[in-house]
Amino acid sequence: MKIDELYALLRRRGVLWPTAEIYGGAQGLYDYGPLGTALKRRIERAWASWFVGRSPDYYLIEPAEIVPEAVVRASGHLENFTDPEITCDACHATFRADTVLEKIRPDGVDGLAPGQIEEVVRANRVRCPKCGSDALSVPQAFNLMFDLPFGVARAERAYLLPETAQASYLAFPRMWEVGRKALPLGVAVIGRAFRNEIAPRQVLFRMRSFTQAELQIFFDPAAPPGKLGPLASEKVPVLRADRRERGEGSTEVVAAGDLVASGLPEFYVDHLVHMLRFLRDVLGYPAERLRFLEKSDKERAFYNRIQFDAEVHLESLGGYKEVAAVHYRGDYDLRRHGEGSGKDLSVARPGADRFVPHVLELTFGVDRNLWALADVHLARDGDRTVWRLPPYLAPVSVGVFPLIAKEQRPFAQRVADELLAAGLDAEYDEASSIGKRYARMDEAGTPFCVTVDGSSVADGPEQGTVTVRSRDTKAQERLRSSELAARFGPAVRPPRPPAT
Amino acid sequence: MKIDELYALLRRRGVLWPTAEIYGGAQGLYDYGPLGTALKRRIERAWASWFVGRSPDYYLIEPAEIVPEAVVRASGHLENFTDPEITCDACHATFRADTVLEKIRPDGVDGLAPGQIEEVVRANRVRCPKCGSDALSVPQAFNLMFDLPFGVARAERAYLLPETAQASYLAFPRMWEVGRKALPLGVAVIGRAFRNEIAPRQVLFRMRSFTQAELQIFFDPAAPPGKLGPLASEKVPVLRADRRERGEGSTEVVAAGDLVASGLPEFYVDHLVHMLRFLRDVLGYPAERLRFLEKSDKERAFYNRIQFDAEVHLESLGGYKEVAAVHYRGDYDLRRHGEGSGKDLSVARPGADRFVPHVLELTFGVDRNLWALADVHLARDGDRTVWRLPPYLAPVSVGVFPLIAKEQRPFAQRVADELLAAGLDAEYDEASSIGKRYARMDEAGTPFCVTVDGSSVADGPEQGTVTVRSRDTKAQERLRSSELAARFGPAVRPPRPPAT
Repeated sequence: MKIDELYALLRRRGVLWPTAEIYGGAQGLYDYGPLGTALKRRIERAWASWFVGRSPDYYLIEPAEIVPEAVVRASGHLENFTDPEITCDACHATFRADTVLEKIRPDGVDGLAPGQIEEVVRANRVRCPKCGSDALSVPQAFNLMFDLPFGVARAERAYLLPETAQASYLAFPRMWEVGRKALPLGVAVIGRAFRNEIAPRQVLFRMRSFTQAELQIFFDPAAPPGKLGPLASEKVPVLRADRRERGEGSTEVVAAGDLVASGLPEFYVDHLVHMLRFLRDVLGYPAERLRFLEKSDKERAFYNRIQFDAEVHLESLGGYKEVAAVHYRGDYDLRRHGEGSGKDLSVARPGADRFVPHVLELTFGVDRNLWALADVHLARDGDRTVWRLPPYLAPVSVGVFPLIAKEQRPFAQRVADELLAAGLDAEYDEASSIGKRYARMDEAGTPFCVTVDGSSVADGPEQGTVTVRSRDTKAQERLRSSELAARFGPAVRPPRPPAT
Repeated sequence: MKIDELYALLRRRGVLWPTAEIYGGAQGLYDYGPLGTALKRRIERAWASWFVGRSPDYYLIEPAEIVPEAVVRASGHLENFTDPEITCDACHATFRADTVLEKIRPDGVDGLAPGQIEEVVRANRVRCPKCGSDALSVPQAFNLMFDLPFGVARAERAYLLPETAQASYLAFPRMWEVGRKALPLGVAVIGRAFRNEIAPRQVLFRMRSFTQAELQIFFDPAAPPGKLGPLASEKVPVLRADRRERGEGSTEVVAAGDLVASGLPEFYVDHLVHMLRFLRDVLGYPAERLRFLEKSDKERAFYNRIQFDAEVHLESLGGYKEVAAVHYRGDYDLRRHGEGSGKDLSVARPGADRFVPHVLELTFGVDRNLWALADVHLARDGDRTVWRLPPYLAPVSVGVFPLIAKEQRPFAQRVADELLAAGLDAEYDEASSIGKRYARMDEAGTPFCVTVDGSSVADGPEQGTVTVRSRDTKAQERLRSSELAARFGPAVRPPRPPAT
């Protein structure tokens, strides 16, 4: 589906809508409705199971999203977290410079000063995308952070976090004490980040308040975590920086072991493969729509030593879009916060010198992936609309229907109650025809539907069987109601990572 | 425990700590560590199960926490969400007026203009609590909302939501379409709210960023939801407004039916009882430490028609503290947002006139209750420290230990893996002595511990039994490992509300 059709369907089904819609909305802000909220929570649960569940030394924390100015000064965001913009002196519209210059400079404008961008605008006679005037100018860089008047005197300055990662770095000394006082140590956050984007667009892809799931792994560079083992043969779709610089834009499929042989550290490739498996095997994105795009020296933030962005090809947005990334950030973060706070954030290697731990960051955009799960898995199938979500991501695990409500209501409600009591997300529905109830569940991604009929009731609660219908195959089978929880349970629990 | 001892224990165990602690912290902001995060999520899950799970027409949504100015203008927050403050012209400290005047005006200073508060200060010769000077003054009211420079021109004004409730009101028209287009309709949010408190204090009780769980029930005043039925005999500890005004400060225990007989609407009392049962039966606060304090006409916000605050007596904070409330808000909210947005938010009563739905609000402070659960349930028992959390709130449901790691590690790890695969929060631990492992789990509130020993291994994975030890009774019993998931499952799932 194209973006407008998909967005209209998601709004209509109450997956999401613009914040403060009755007031005309607010650019870059969205509210999740019941289905969106349930799906978002299941994505977060699957992420935590796969990434935080990979080691007993990885922990999930929930930090505040406001920090004092000293934090963002040390992290570099106060100085550097800017997007060049272009304004029109005729119509007063404002645009992101990289968007206006997309065709002229496809690699973006990172690193260019406002004056240099203005030269590009003049040399190419760029006109205002809105009014067509040539009166464009490039003002001083615009910081994307939201600052807050904090405290009663409003003299303290505080900021909404532009990335959850900073909270994990700040927590490092506490987590060192709470954990085993050993590396590697993982500190994960699933939380909000805030950016005053110049041009919010593409619905969930450039929001001003959004949810990140990020795992920061602190490690000793002399003993980095992650061995490939049998995963060396795993096929990774990559687009390497050197090939991109030569203008070769197609994805290569390379064995993980060969990526190591090409010079990438094994621990890094191990985590790239772990991310690949999450996107492909857990979220169910088809392998051929995935790629890992390597950022070149010029493109990546200066503190990132290695960066591959995970991208999914989305029909609704007309191309590959970033949904996650793996960043090797070196010792930049703890070194800067050590300097900024005056606290010693180094640790001792047993029997050796102290050192500042390095950081490997696994970052994942929850909202973007929610959109991608709709783009990839929500489809028309004849006159059905079916959301083929993996069962553990579906907002409702089991729909329970009486064929004829007034005859089978108590039996069907008991079945739904038993499934709920067993910890399954069951939903009882007796409204309208069975066909419409199936259609409603198909559109919401419900993997299983259970129908209670006259013979279920006639055979009684112990022996009575019900019809189980699978969303994807439309196959039907008869099962005793007492067998249902055991049957559905394993399918609707998120996959756990393989033992390492 | 007193506040300092309890807070120190919670910090040491990594339940929570000040945000940006290495930078000296930020007043009124806290980060939750691993145990705090897990406990907080379980409180939220129990709340959703009990309140949102009460009706298929109640829904959980996840809205953005930023709204445009028009929203807070219509809600009244722009004009009225203020706290009078007192500043010292000698030492420049700032205080909440109600705190400084606590002894002189125990009922607070709501409704007094700055000039009137200044008269009270002069008449009583109040001195600065910090430096002792008499140079106190009362400036103009201070709005507690955080405003944001929103948009590129920073000309749009936006606000961090001071209460999650507003997002539910804004969502009403969408939810009407998504739901059955019928009342009652419940819209719940578990999310952050933000207040630039003048004097953050008492750790989680007055924070600048905090989590609310709120259910707004939209209903037709001609057919309000909730019948007491057999719950009419439920004993409710109350402190009525009229008795308080006569200076009688003790709690009465009154049958729910008698509250109705005294003039409170039945639907209101029904929800008061539902809240009581959540606090007492689900969170486990002892009945004798609970009370519902009725706010008088003068005390409650003008739009609230009835308001009882739920309070728990906390040793750490030296008295009763508000942890939840039930507000009958009439049609104030939808009427104001209808006027503010120019949209018609009324609905049609079948075969009759259109009307603006009324709102019953059930509000619950997640952070405050997390603290209260520590105050009430975390205790010294001889040389043990035991957190007697209800099993479904415990961060870890089952601790799994090998008696001798090098002999029973594979068996014990398999047991832990099987419990995890069955959806239970199991944690494997082989560090230090069994006694220390039990002590660590006791302090974290883990209800069950499983120990694998030599005979477990000798009898094999099918027949081998393990020792199950209960936190509260310290009783031990032998069970086959295959029986564990079925044994623990029902205890660690949050209670569901009784059918209504």
